[in-house]
Amino acid sequence: MEKTFLIATHNMKKRNELLRILEPLGIDVKTDEELGITLSDVEETGETFYENALLKAQSGCRESGLPCVADDSGLMVDYLAGAPGVYSARFAGEHGNDAKNNAKLLKLLKDVPEEERTARFVSVTCCAFPDGTVLTARGECVGKIGYEEIGEGGFGYDPVFMVNGKSFAEISDEEKDSLSHRGKSLAVLSQKLRELYV
Amino acid sequence: MEKTFLIATHNMKKRNELLRILEPLGIDVKTDEELGITLSDVEETGETFYENALLKAQSGCRESGLPCVADDSGLMVDYLAGAPGVYSARFAGEHGNDAKNNAKLLKLLKDVPEEERTARFVSVTCCAFPDGTVLTARGECVGKIGYEEIGEGGFGYDPVFMVNGKSFAEISDEEKDSLSHRGKSLAVLSQKLRELYV
Repeated sequence: MEKTFLIATHNMKKRNELLRILEPLGIDVKTDEELGITLSDVEETGETFYENALLKAQSGCRESGLPCVADDSGLMVDYLAGAPGVYSARFAGEHGNDAKNNAKLLKLLKDVPEEERTARFVSVTCCAFPDGTVLTARGECVGKIGYEEIGEGGFGYDPVFMVNGKSFAEISDEEKDSLSHRGKSLAVLSQKLRELYV
Repeated sequence: MEKTFLIATHNMKKRNELLRILEPLGIDVKTDEELGITLSDVEETGETFYENALLKAQSGCRESGLPCVADDSGLMVDYLAGAPGVYSARFAGEHGNDAKNNAKLLKLLKDVPEEERTARFVSVTCCAFPDGTVLTARGECVGKIGYEEIGEGGFGYDPVFMVNGKSFAEISDEEKDSLSHRGKSLAVLSQKLRELYV
């Protein structure tokens, strides 16, 4: 079986998280740049994380001829009926950014009491193989939305996502891998990959 | 082919909308009560309207042995990244109601300018047949969220959903059938049913 996998992401911090977890499997993970190709931008038109992750993994696999891992993830806030969900990256509009997304979220939850501020980070990872095989895994991390941005690490909604009294932007990479939605989802995916390789 | 169809809904206003549109097809539509049976409550666990409508239609068909029409619908507010969506009925919590849902929505959109108040009502209808055939249709109606509840008709989010300067709670049943998400979705579904019967 192939030992070089493509990782379909342009988000360098996401890529580094993925690399950190998949390398111990003995899988050589490369981005499209490292392979000297350029993946098409995939429009994330799915209604669910699963649809988007699958779209990206299958497109990357088709274009590279290699097994391709892709991830789709986002924040689901209970008070907002699961929003921003698949629209997490675009919550403050097409020209938004992390700071604008977090500011919008904090404003919407301004007067909301602590017990109603529950939220989940969700990650779905897919690995698509050239023979059509698809492996999928889902991970969730439950927390609460804080009242302000805290911490300098992480990315996205990490500074407002609180678990055990700390924000995701305050904890180490190792702590985050063990707690986080993406860490859990990749742990399940790498277990499924291991079974394929035995 | 069967001429008696089951309608899977406990919402009487929804049932009346469905009846009004399907009766002209010569299809005798009955609720579970009228058939002397009691459908199990289907947990709407789907992530999409389509999944929920399909769950309800297939469950109703299985339990009655009749073709069964079901609908899932909700409001998708652009500023809220598509929320409340599949959670529309439960937006203000399990013990909420239309008034609480509308109050919550208006509060979340309090300072939001008119051009950012765009929203869509979405309806997906499914008809499941005992032989496993499934017909599906989707309808959308684009509008804006108003600044207060207006009108005495309709149900759900109708009093805050504005199209052409009027709320959905102000217009006649006939106007609503021609404009609404459910009207459009049922028009497509009844067209598909007609083709089956020719």
